[in-house]
Amino acid sequence: MSGPSTVTAAVLVIGDEILSGRTKDRNIGYIAEYLGKIGVDVREARVVPDVEEEIVAALDALRSRYDYVVTTGGIGPTHDDITADAVARAFGAPIAEDPRIIAMMAERYGPADFTPARRRMARIPSGAELVDNPISTAPGFRIGNVFVLAGVPQVMQAMLDCAVKSMKTGSTMAVETIESGQVPEGRYGDALGAIAKALPTVSIGSYPSFKDGKFNNQIVVRGKDPEAVEAARQAVEAMLAAMRTDGKPL
Amino acid sequence: MSGPSTVTAAVLVIGDEILSGRTKDRNIGYIAEYLGKIGVDVREARVVPDVEEEIVAALDALRSRYDYVVTTGGIGPTHDDITADAVARAFGAPIAEDPRIIAMMAERYGPADFTPARRRMARIPSGAELVDNPISTAPGFRIGNVFVLAGVPQVMQAMLDCAVKSMKTGSTMAVETIESGQVPEGRYGDALGAIAKALPTVSIGSYPSFKDGKFNNQIVVRGKDPEAVEAARQAVEAMLAAMRTDGKPL
Repeated sequence: MSGPSTVTAAVLVIGDEILSGRTKDRNIGYIAEYLGKIGVDVREARVVPDVEEEIVAALDALRSRYDYVVTTGGIGPTHDDITADAVARAFGAPIAEDPRIIAMMAERYGPADFTPARRRMARIPSGAELVDNPISTAPGFRIGNVFVLAGVPQVMQAMLDCAVKSMKTGSTMAVETIESGQVPEGRYGDALGAIAKALPTVSIGSYPSFKDGKFNNQIVVRGKDPEAVEAARQAVEAMLAAMRTDGKPL
Repeated sequence: MSGPSTVTAAVLVIGDEILSGRTKDRNIGYIAEYLGKIGVDVREARVVPDVEEEIVAALDALRSRYDYVVTTGGIGPTHDDITADAVARAFGAPIAEDPRIIAMMAERYGPADFTPARRRMARIPSGAELVDNPISTAPGFRIGNVFVLAGVPQVMQAMLDCAVKSMKTGSTMAVETIESGQVPEGRYGDALGAIAKALPTVSIGSYPSFKDGKFNNQIVVRGKDPEAVEAARQAVEAMLAAMRTDGKPL
């Protein structure tokens, strides 16, 4: 799947609330789908707690390996919001109140409302670029190849719209989804494996879901070469058609 | 948060479909919540693609660091199901068809239906214990401190019920959730930080959500000492009550 037009990313979700199960993450899937559509392939995701050493270690592992890292969570006004400090530490950058953010926030909050807690949201690593927050003022930021976004899905999504403007993108994946209908995975697994082997430039996945006591499968063919993806789709359709009509039990 | 009765775990989600965004993960949150309730603290989660080296590297990083690792995905009958091979490689264990699984599956499938693809699901690392699958026969397994479960949420959940029977558990977290009502994070952030500092054995988080154009916040207090958690709850309630009545704008 590698090639000159491949751009990769990782998602780093930061927050105790995800690891306690209190909050169910909705950001990994959203970011993965969004970036995939514009030609940035998400290759890994991690969830870490609100512990500076853990955030720094994950950031360093991911930012050295992928073109981009998108983080979510930990940039609010409370004591458990330590993402900006962790990112600064990972980059060895000083952290301080950013005058651009202070100006934005001073426009929104009166002097009595501009609490030290809110000022905390203006602290970003030196040299970072801002990522607009059209919903609640305090911006995210970008430093190096790391984009630091909010954790609240609506705010994260609005920030992501801004963040991607400065990302380079690769070629997008062609994707075909084929319903297997009543043909079970165990029936087509061998033939599908042979197709996958014959077409190494496409990625073929088989995905069962389970509803009302029955499995339903989809076969997904993905790749950067649309012709190879189309060839794989045809081969899979032909395979399923043969199995539906060969008289053997499904 | 550490102590003699702390048992930790990590979740490893395996599958290209999660990283493409096609399938939205529902297993991390479920496992985190489920294990937390029985006294196993999930400390990290990762999502990796269907690439053996990636699975092995993540497994090795996580199994050496946490008491348990729970994996989901990649144990079906198709060519992209490579989790069992990756786990065997991580443990340096041979992999082969397990006679117990062959017997179970032979009961379900007739000779014509017991395809090579289905037999693939009987391949597990040598020495692994089985984790029952009450839904679709082919079991998960445990080797060392790693539990290997299905990716389909309903099947994973049924397997998890079985898997936890052999886990040691620590003391559970006491958890209190306090609604901040109309008091915004930026207003209470400083005072909340002071409470968190004064009560270092509890973990205090502030979690905004956004609905219909408005933020709503919850403050969550967690810890293994119920008295300390109760003290923190009372301090947070008192803090919010003071802010609701001090006459300053919220």
